[in-house]
Amino acid sequence: MSAAERFIHEALEVIIDEAVKKATDVQEKVCDWQSPEKLRELLDLELKDGGESDSKILQHCKNAIRYSVKTSHPRFFNQLFAGLEPYSMVASFITEAVKTSLYTYEVAPVFTLMEDAVLKKMMELIGWDEGGDGIFNPGGSMSNMYAVNLARYRFCPDIKEVGLYNAPRLVMFTSQEGHYSISKAAALLGLGTKNVYSILPPADMLLSLMILVQGAVPFFVNATAGTTVFGAFDPVDEIADICERHSLWLHVDVSSFTHSLFILRLNVLRADSVAWNPHKMLMACLQCSAFLIKDKTSLLQRCHSAKASYLFQQDKFYDVSYDTGDKSVQCSRKPDAFKFWLMWKALGSSELERRVDRALAMARYLAQTVKKREGFHLLMKPEYANVCFWYVPPALRGLPDGPELWRKLHTVAPVIKERMMKTGSMMIGYQTHGDKPNFFRMVVINPQVSKQDLDFVLDEIHSLGKDLR
Amino acid sequence: MSAAERFIHEALEVIIDEAVKKATDVQEKVCDWQSPEKLRELLDLELKDGGESDSKILQHCKNAIRYSVKTSHPRFFNQLFAGLEPYSMVASFITEAVKTSLYTYEVAPVFTLMEDAVLKKMMELIGWDEGGDGIFNPGGSMSNMYAVNLARYRFCPDIKEVGLYNAPRLVMFTSQEGHYSISKAAALLGLGTKNVYSILPPADMLLSLMILVQGAVPFFVNATAGTTVFGAFDPVDEIADICERHSLWLHVDVSSFTHSLFILRLNVLRADSVAWNPHKMLMACLQCSAFLIKDKTSLLQRCHSAKASYLFQQDKFYDVSYDTGDKSVQCSRKPDAFKFWLMWKALGSSELERRVDRALAMARYLAQTVKKREGFHLLMKPEYANVCFWYVPPALRGLPDGPELWRKLHTVAPVIKERMMKTGSMMIGYQTHGDKPNFFRMVVINPQVSKQDLDFVLDEIHSLGKDLR
Repeated sequence: MSAAERFIHEALEVIIDEAVKKATDVQEKVCDWQSPEKLRELLDLELKDGGESDSKILQHCKNAIRYSVKTSHPRFFNQLFAGLEPYSMVASFITEAVKTSLYTYEVAPVFTLMEDAVLKKMMELIGWDEGGDGIFNPGGSMSNMYAVNLARYRFCPDIKEVGLYNAPRLVMFTSQEGHYSISKAAALLGLGTKNVYSILPPADMLLSLMILVQGAVPFFVNATAGTTVFGAFDPVDEIADICERHSLWLHVDVSSFTHSLFILRLNVLRADSVAWNPHKMLMACLQCSAFLIKDKTSLLQRCHSAKASYLFQQDKFYDVSYDTGDKSVQCSRKPDAFKFWLMWKALGSSELERRVDRALAMARYLAQTVKKREGFHLLMKPEYANVCFWYVPPALRGLPDGPELWRKLHTVAPVIKERMMKTGSMMIGYQTHGDKPNFFRMVVINPQVSKQDLDFVLDEIHSLGKDLR
Repeated sequence: MSAAERFIHEALEVIIDEAVKKATDVQEKVCDWQSPEKLRELLDLELKDGGESDSKILQHCKNAIRYSVKTSHPRFFNQLFAGLEPYSMVASFITEAVKTSLYTYEVAPVFTLMEDAVLKKMMELIGWDEGGDGIFNPGGSMSNMYAVNLARYRFCPDIKEVGLYNAPRLVMFTSQEGHYSISKAAALLGLGTKNVYSILPPADMLLSLMILVQGAVPFFVNATAGTTVFGAFDPVDEIADICERHSLWLHVDVSSFTHSLFILRLNVLRADSVAWNPHKMLMACLQCSAFLIKDKTSLLQRCHSAKASYLFQQDKFYDVSYDTGDKSVQCSRKPDAFKFWLMWKALGSSELERRVDRALAMARYLAQTVKKREGFHLLMKPEYANVCFWYVPPALRGLPDGPELWRKLHTVAPVIKERMMKTGSMMIGYQTHGDKPNFFRMVVINPQVSKQDLDFVLDEIHSLGKDLR
């Protein structure tokens, strides 16, 4: 066995012990919090002229895992991803070891076909019977950006060549609770964040459309099925009516969640494009984000192509329509679809759906429990997997609803967050929203979570915060 | 041992045997070519309601590896990446298993600090003594796009909010042989591909600047140090003089290669920004692409930020300047820097430099050999790691230089390419350039390549193509 091989073997043992077994063990900590200053010392970050021995490098691997947050732990609720999916993880190891890029069939034959198969199956599931087109991207923000760019290209293909200089002022609509990447896209694409109108669909939207007739031209609407903060749903059907009437591109962002098929279809059937992230509720490894469009006139290719001669030769000996690279704004692109394909193959569609159902059932259980517990208050009845709530420590429970209570309550969640991180017992996000004081946002994404874990979270919040005043 | 654990163990053995050992064994094939139709059958792509057994899934893993191109094989020269780097591969497995995203220190403390350390060290190496800022991106195209966006933001920050509608026509310069992603960026950013002027710097550039005074405003120049096709270098110092005089943003694209430090410094010291891909000549796993900027006024953050309340709370208990997510146009972002950090730590800067030197020495050997061999003709003396040449089969060697020879020569490379793919003996790219007939472009990136491998390639080209006429 060569030295390199021995190192790989030893490192894989470390990965299984530390990043798989310990990381998913409920008896272990979710995180081993260190301040940046302290962690810098512990990690020995300096890069030098000379190299280090394999045993030292193994120690660096152990440290990297040890001080990383255990996002696969059943008590990690801090993000819209969670849990460990072994098939997807193995697939991601294979894509790393195989080390290729998706521009041409020639250099990525397997992953090109797998991406195609996964995209087709996704379109079939959402009910686009005539098919469409699509591409996997590095994240839902990129998918949303693609949607805006395609909408603009359909509206006026010349902009690709001549830019926006002689174009009318193009405006976009997004639901108030839509993801911030729509605004980032407007900035990047030269459209301007001020030309993104945040609306409460659909009533507002009609009004805005009327206001806007003079001088500005709407071309794009982003609807959200499962918002990031509240998990709320826009009335997609009504929005689709307006979009059809005014020839607006309808993009539906389902990035934040995976939905049971019924909900999914209901929301995206009439969309022109969809952003859907299997790396969230379906637990595929990061990143695994699909962008789907209903168009079948190669809009994706026409909008993004640059026809590089060194990659996309037209006199190749195989059908070059399999070279998908020019559909992307990237050059090298990772074969992320494989991470989803392998787990889908192993589990089947029905088990994927059961997982979503199980996570949603857990979210409902959490909401019910929050409702019943003293000192806990739901912000609103949850529509989906997000459960947003306040914890009111005993000392504040007697205060009347009003500015004083709100001011004090605002400081509670950050302190509890600090304490849970330092204890390492769990991780939950907190935030404000509008004029609401800080609240906890728990997103139950991981079907590996149990009722015991959820009970623990509420007990722990109380135990960490009961002295606050 | 749980079933999942057993599956992971078995799959890891498959990965080591098939994707590491066999894939780098010179006795094995570089690829096992199958047409898309045939491969579709072999892979059994269909996704069904029910799942499949672990043993079947293992077989899918084996097939995925078997029919993938072995980009780590010493006879793979088809792309600007090649070779297997075990430390980087292990690091990429860790990032997959640890499964986190780089938006906040809270959820990615280790990788946040590692990215920072790697970026700082890269800036130190290129001689930016005062430091700067940077970010790892999914590919060099994204880095180039960032450069254009930052240049535009520095030129006129209001465009982020109001868009390009009242802006003057902004124009960009790029060297004729610059990467196509500059043009893709112009399209995406609403600047328009027609406003990208391909020039032969620096003489042309001065001229263009003079022509453009009326109505258009230049703001950005992309220079290339190591072009994709020929590995040629723009005269960066002269371009920098012009940029300084006209207050243009100078971006230097060194994506395609990693340079010996002397060459690197010479080329990027005066740049405002740099795109540098450790996943190419340094063999870090895909993707590993850094974007560096000299600015120290948080331009990156100001240009891209959207201040999402659910991620970037300002009342956290730690220093939130460690939350780097809002520097990016992505939301979730992979910790790619770790793949570079771990191998750098293991090898040290001096071994990294030796690798580059070794690959360059091999490229020189190849060029010399091509020059000496009958029937092989260099397009030009190589400046760097790219060796571009024609192979003229014996039947064509008597033809006078002219249209007939060129027409016939044009068909030679595609046929040889087809035959090498079907034999699986090696992989090399071919292409046209301007009016030049198809030629082979070999990029010697992998320090694991030997003189024997290079001799083999030329022998094999002759053996596959000697009957062509």
